[in-house]
Amino acid sequence: MSKEITSRVTDYSQWYNDIVVKADLAEHSAVRGCMVIKPHGYAIWEKMQAVLDRMFKETGHSNAYFPLFIPKSYFSKEASHVDGFATECAVVTHYRLKNDGNGNIVVDENAKLEEELVVRPTSETIIWNTYKGWIESYRDLPILVNQWANVVRWEMRTRLFLRTAEFLWQEGHTAHATQEEAIEESERMLHVYADFVENWMAVPVVRGRKSANERFAGALETYCIEALMQDGKALQAGTSHFLGQNFAKAFDVKFTGRDGKLEYVWATSWGVSTRLIGALIMAHSDDSGLVIPPKLAPIQVVIVPIYKGTEELDAISSFVSELVVKLKAKGIAVKYDDRDTQRPGFKFAEYEMKGVPVRIAVGKRDMENGTVEVARRDTKTKLTVGQDGLEIYLQQLLEEIQQNLFDRALAFRDSHITPANSYEEFKQLLDEKGGFISAHWDGTPETEQRIKEETKATIRCIPLDNPREEGVCILTGKPSTQRVLFARAY
Amino acid sequence: MSKEITSRVTDYSQWYNDIVVKADLAEHSAVRGCMVIKPHGYAIWEKMQAVLDRMFKETGHSNAYFPLFIPKSYFSKEASHVDGFATECAVVTHYRLKNDGNGNIVVDENAKLEEELVVRPTSETIIWNTYKGWIESYRDLPILVNQWANVVRWEMRTRLFLRTAEFLWQEGHTAHATQEEAIEESERMLHVYADFVENWMAVPVVRGRKSANERFAGALETYCIEALMQDGKALQAGTSHFLGQNFAKAFDVKFTGRDGKLEYVWATSWGVSTRLIGALIMAHSDDSGLVIPPKLAPIQVVIVPIYKGTEELDAISSFVSELVVKLKAKGIAVKYDDRDTQRPGFKFAEYEMKGVPVRIAVGKRDMENGTVEVARRDTKTKLTVGQDGLEIYLQQLLEEIQQNLFDRALAFRDSHITPANSYEEFKQLLDEKGGFISAHWDGTPETEQRIKEETKATIRCIPLDNPREEGVCILTGKPSTQRVLFARAY
Repeated sequence: MSKEITSRVTDYSQWYNDIVVKADLAEHSAVRGCMVIKPHGYAIWEKMQAVLDRMFKETGHSNAYFPLFIPKSYFSKEASHVDGFATECAVVTHYRLKNDGNGNIVVDENAKLEEELVVRPTSETIIWNTYKGWIESYRDLPILVNQWANVVRWEMRTRLFLRTAEFLWQEGHTAHATQEEAIEESERMLHVYADFVENWMAVPVVRGRKSANERFAGALETYCIEALMQDGKALQAGTSHFLGQNFAKAFDVKFTGRDGKLEYVWATSWGVSTRLIGALIMAHSDDSGLVIPPKLAPIQVVIVPIYKGTEELDAISSFVSELVVKLKAKGIAVKYDDRDTQRPGFKFAEYEMKGVPVRIAVGKRDMENGTVEVARRDTKTKLTVGQDGLEIYLQQLLEEIQQNLFDRALAFRDSHITPANSYEEFKQLLDEKGGFISAHWDGTPETEQRIKEETKATIRCIPLDNPREEGVCILTGKPSTQRVLFARAY
Repeated sequence: MSKEITSRVTDYSQWYNDIVVKADLAEHSAVRGCMVIKPHGYAIWEKMQAVLDRMFKETGHSNAYFPLFIPKSYFSKEASHVDGFATECAVVTHYRLKNDGNGNIVVDENAKLEEELVVRPTSETIIWNTYKGWIESYRDLPILVNQWANVVRWEMRTRLFLRTAEFLWQEGHTAHATQEEAIEESERMLHVYADFVENWMAVPVVRGRKSANERFAGALETYCIEALMQDGKALQAGTSHFLGQNFAKAFDVKFTGRDGKLEYVWATSWGVSTRLIGALIMAHSDDSGLVIPPKLAPIQVVIVPIYKGTEELDAISSFVSELVVKLKAKGIAVKYDDRDTQRPGFKFAEYEMKGVPVRIAVGKRDMENGTVEVARRDTKTKLTVGQDGLEIYLQQLLEEIQQNLFDRALAFRDSHITPANSYEEFKQLLDEKGGFISAHWDGTPETEQRIKEETKATIRCIPLDNPREEGVCILTGKPSTQRVLFARAY
């Protein structure tokens, strides 16, 4: 493995790609737009899934599974949904291949589907068509269901994890008897996401609402969490939608209330995807490679022996095997890398690139002195530490690293929320500093659209509990009652 | 919910469908051949996944994720594979829908793919095309990777869990430097599957090899575990394939050995699917509904209060909340159902239908006597048990139920392995008794094929460590050196 990657200042985009590939997280596949998630990348996703899944269950949700395919006609049933999702998608038209007699495999034109099937870009339609059969009375509500699945959106310009034709995600779809309950649910899940991204991924987020332009197709309200990457661009890390009765009406899902009256059901949906891995990479990593927060690191501590000959190795291995037991007892994911096919320097570079939070080296001198060398990935500092009570030291160190990564990202983020009071200042800040720009906006989709066209910046969100402030729109000069957060975004 | 299901003797097939639907496990979706796995069914699958995933990791495997789509041409690369998998499949031909101007959503003929994509029926081809980039030297081997995924095979006649167009599964794909190591791997994973099915699902299996006719398309050897259902039909519960160098040759995957020579890589693949849920249902359930072995039950113990008025309920709930803490501390999944919208009798019927292993009822009289009523799902027996030390009693009871289910299934299976020494006897046994029939066979695909056509029975497997025995083929009278197991199968 080449240890060199492009630096962030040279080419941020290339730096990102280099890390994804050289840290063995993912690679492009032979199928346009689809990625292969390699074991190291998938192990991070599994950690994310485990935490999120526990959070979903603690908030009363169950998992289920709905079909990969959605009949084409379903997309016509919810008017705004069709434009948002049914355009760029994978369409299944046939159900058989055949040998043409010359050794070529061709599509069998006799096996054409009566109605084309779309590979799900999101599952509201097929799920609400199913819920129709599950809901009769208020006793059947709420339905609190989540699905872990793959989805496909035919993206022309793809980037590993950030934007791929196929990606993995979870999508929660809930059904409620009242509007209040559905809004409460969509807000609850937004906070679950924020909790996860801040306390596990160590990435601070702004919680807010989307403007009408940026809302999910079919939603009355889209809540979102927005994170800031090191290049000053924002990244939407999760969304939670209050769907009103739109899908219930589209699929005719009614329930009998306690009062005996028939009413349409209220809906929410919410999702996060493998895109979070992209956010994780871009929030913390450096010019030496990936940096993973300890709470999501598949390997939290790696131990590398430095030795000449089997006698030295045996002494070190004997010490390490005891240490490994103590670390595992503390719930620390540890790996002892005693491969004899690679030299220590190669291993150091490999684990640095792969973002393992703590690396321990043990050599002959260490064994004599009762010490080890501890290297932190986040600060790239090394320290000699006594072997006694090392497991307690490491446990605290991992917590410290987790906190340090969050604090660092928070300081960066907070120093990149800048007010702008004129359009000139706004454009200058965007070009020279990036980050979130807090500015007055007249509240119209037209103004937002014009700003987007002229500057590539969008309203990332209207923060929850946004303070009221009298002002004028930076573009139109019309009156405004609050600032909103603009940014260029992934 | 209607409490009535068809009995097994009346219509076994309908009994199975009734259980799947009335126990809320799954249902047919609006998309032909695709099922919706409902929360109760999915919870069983999650339990299965968790155990299997741990077993895979303990045997050194990591998870990864490969694309859903496979270029059509890949199927031509492995000669036998194309016939086995590329015929009945979902073919993506376009990547866009559009509004035709009259409000109809139609396929955009300007967005036709240059090469059609097949929704993966199994992933050997795309994975070996990927492995080509991962493998250069013996140092890169072995690769021990598993994928949890959805796959699609266009089945015309589908049955929930047993045979559906889309299903969920795991597929392990490993790459090795030597033939011996690859064979060892495929055998190891067969034993992992057998361990899981016997010790978690409580279903006894026969471990064996497939005959050439029944081998996986592209395999040199297919190992399998075969289980017996209550109607005397066999069900293949898992397969593990030694693929030789077929896929390495098809995708040109070579490695440099320690001796510096280039050689093709050796391969295995192995999988189990949501079909296992079908096996679980058919092995243990009865005319009252589903029976789930305790180790895979999402709810192991359900507690139902029997009360009049809030005072009685409060006293019961106070006792139950302490019991719940004690049960959870023992790792027992417990649910207290104090819904006031349903009567106890309704709840009893619901949990019986859903297969909860142990049901506890507590009423006023119980509270006075310091007892509870414990009902076992497997034997349908009820017992009054003291409240003191109840958690220890229940822990033992769950173990006893697990063992009882296995013993019962084993006794049934063992009483349904019958030798046949003539074709007449063979056919008579098939029609009158079913089960596995142990018979001599001349070893030719032609004979197996003729028996299949005439009797619908196939060779389920040639058991591992099969004893040698001189005999003559039941069909042709030609000499044979061992008996093999025939059965009609799912």
